[in-house]
Amino acid sequence: MTLFEQTLAAIGPLDLEAERAASARLDTLTKPLGSLGQLEEFVRRYAAIRHDGAARFGGGALMVFVADHGVADVGVSAYPRAVTVEMLRNIGAGGAAISVLARSFGYQLFVTDVGVEADTSLSPLMGVRYQRVRTGTRNFLDGPAMSTEQACQAIEIGIETTLEAAAGGATLLGIGEMGIANSTSAAAILAALTGLGPRRLVGRGTGIDDAGLERKIAVVEAATELHRQCFNEGLQILAALGGFEIAAMAGACLAAAAHKLPLVVDGFIATAAAAIAEKIHPGLFSYMFFGHRSAEGGHAIVLEFLGVRPILDLGMRLGEGTGAALAMNTIESALTLFNQMATFSSAGVSGKLI
Amino acid sequence: MTLFEQTLAAIGPLDLEAERAASARLDTLTKPLGSLGQLEEFVRRYAAIRHDGAARFGGGALMVFVADHGVADVGVSAYPRAVTVEMLRNIGAGGAAISVLARSFGYQLFVTDVGVEADTSLSPLMGVRYQRVRTGTRNFLDGPAMSTEQACQAIEIGIETTLEAAAGGATLLGIGEMGIANSTSAAAILAALTGLGPRRLVGRGTGIDDAGLERKIAVVEAATELHRQCFNEGLQILAALGGFEIAAMAGACLAAAAHKLPLVVDGFIATAAAAIAEKIHPGLFSYMFFGHRSAEGGHAIVLEFLGVRPILDLGMRLGEGTGAALAMNTIESALTLFNQMATFSSAGVSGKLI
Repeated sequence: MTLFEQTLAAIGPLDLEAERAASARLDTLTKPLGSLGQLEEFVRRYAAIRHDGAARFGGGALMVFVADHGVADVGVSAYPRAVTVEMLRNIGAGGAAISVLARSFGYQLFVTDVGVEADTSLSPLMGVRYQRVRTGTRNFLDGPAMSTEQACQAIEIGIETTLEAAAGGATLLGIGEMGIANSTSAAAILAALTGLGPRRLVGRGTGIDDAGLERKIAVVEAATELHRQCFNEGLQILAALGGFEIAAMAGACLAAAAHKLPLVVDGFIATAAAAIAEKIHPGLFSYMFFGHRSAEGGHAIVLEFLGVRPILDLGMRLGEGTGAALAMNTIESALTLFNQMATFSSAGVSGKLI
Repeated sequence: MTLFEQTLAAIGPLDLEAERAASARLDTLTKPLGSLGQLEEFVRRYAAIRHDGAARFGGGALMVFVADHGVADVGVSAYPRAVTVEMLRNIGAGGAAISVLARSFGYQLFVTDVGVEADTSLSPLMGVRYQRVRTGTRNFLDGPAMSTEQACQAIEIGIETTLEAAAGGATLLGIGEMGIANSTSAAAILAALTGLGPRRLVGRGTGIDDAGLERKIAVVEAATELHRQCFNEGLQILAALGGFEIAAMAGACLAAAAHKLPLVVDGFIATAAAAIAEKIHPGLFSYMFFGHRSAEGGHAIVLEFLGVRPILDLGMRLGEGTGAALAMNTIESALTLFNQMATFSSAGVSGKLI
């Protein structure tokens, strides 16, 4: 079996007993029943995924995957393709938004080049891991963005990164990405998976103008038309329309579930990866948290379509895992409350009258 | 001049120059323009309130005020009145939700007894400050809950606490409360201030049953009928329907604005205090952040009526300042990003094409 197949085979059920134990303990804490709202739901879900009624927090890890996209050739982004490698350097060096948040929250940060056009591996950038599948995807208007083998390879990079994060003690993961033109790829994937029209899904990405937006919509329409025959299978959609960073994030989603690690999905592009993972293994969403409602394109519509509720709604649309990081911090606060609050009996607080 | 009058006189305009400076710096950071969404708005508002274009963060402080309510006599709460002093002890001792969050975030915690029925001041509870106005308010169905002098005294306690927090280095404040029956008082105040019907505002508080909820609505209807003649003036509404902790929080709102300190309002009860402060000094809301949309009663309706947007929406309804604490942490993350992210020029990242 390949690592990918092993990972799929290892995905087991949630631990409902651990969920019940966490739920029972929540009700002993010095607060009105249910008054921590969604924070209580986070604790129960975390316990069920971790198979740990005590919902212990070991640490957080953010996995950021970076790659280039052939479709950038047709002018779908407000920024030049060179920004991908420039931001790869900036993320590794600690200057990007996700670097600042990871440092501030004390989360491990894994930054992986899975296929940036400019190859810096011979003179490696600080803080960057190199697992390059290829120098960017092909333009999916000319054929599949990558081969099935390349899609599997990128998925396995995501799996391996997840295993490393787990080995480092992380019990809560987040995924993020960087790659000029990847909101075009994500919109095409989400159109393929949901059947929603490209015009409802495509957004301005890093800030494209009106003419660029129309071009981007036309590109997604053409791509979904061209590759329609492969829309029944998650792996084929990924190969046809994906990016290597999207494939790696999908791999991370699968590995997290297989290894009992709650994973927080970032925004629009990470949601495309999570939706591919759910298509490959239906039911996978129950192992994930959706970090935030992004302001990018049709993210709100997609979340509603997928039937998932985001934790935060702060109008962010930066990517990199920034929304996931803030949401992980919120989940961590819920776990801290769960583990440190006094109980009615330990604090000598009276119970309910009516 | 009294401290209250001095405070009102000291409230000056926001610093729009500092706001512009912060805004200009935001646009140099390595991210698409505006892509941090509301986080960017937090930074701009913070800079304007602080009169500091660099939006420096000195520290956070949570001010929790605790008091009892005469109206608890008529059975408007699911918990006995003894829970107020029991939770005062628990908050001071570190076992309550707000104690856990303050410790976890590294924020100073000021816990003040402003009028709990059980007087523990002679054998002081750990971590509790005593500035007791009276042993609880009077039942506002029998007349005003407190005298105007008592309302001013409680307001000044809130002002003094804010000055202490500022002297301790805090540059970001949060307010919270505890007091059995205070969601009844808050609903009555908000009904008086907004004209919204009690049935739309009253909630289940700590979890009252259906019969209790009807009783609570009837109490708020009767109270607003009884005290209607004083609804033109914030201080009189506060004296008629308030709690000492609500008055102290209103004082904190006024003092924060006077001393250029951004303040984060918690949920339903803290919003009643903020709305009283706004009534006393129209325009005060621009110095505040609303931490979250509480699940209590008509909080969502009230926030909409007041025209303010909450930072978080996590279905919480615990009070104590817990929603404010989580939102302060989000604002702090925004400030950290602002102060630690690289700029396009420092990181050598290319600019926009189109």
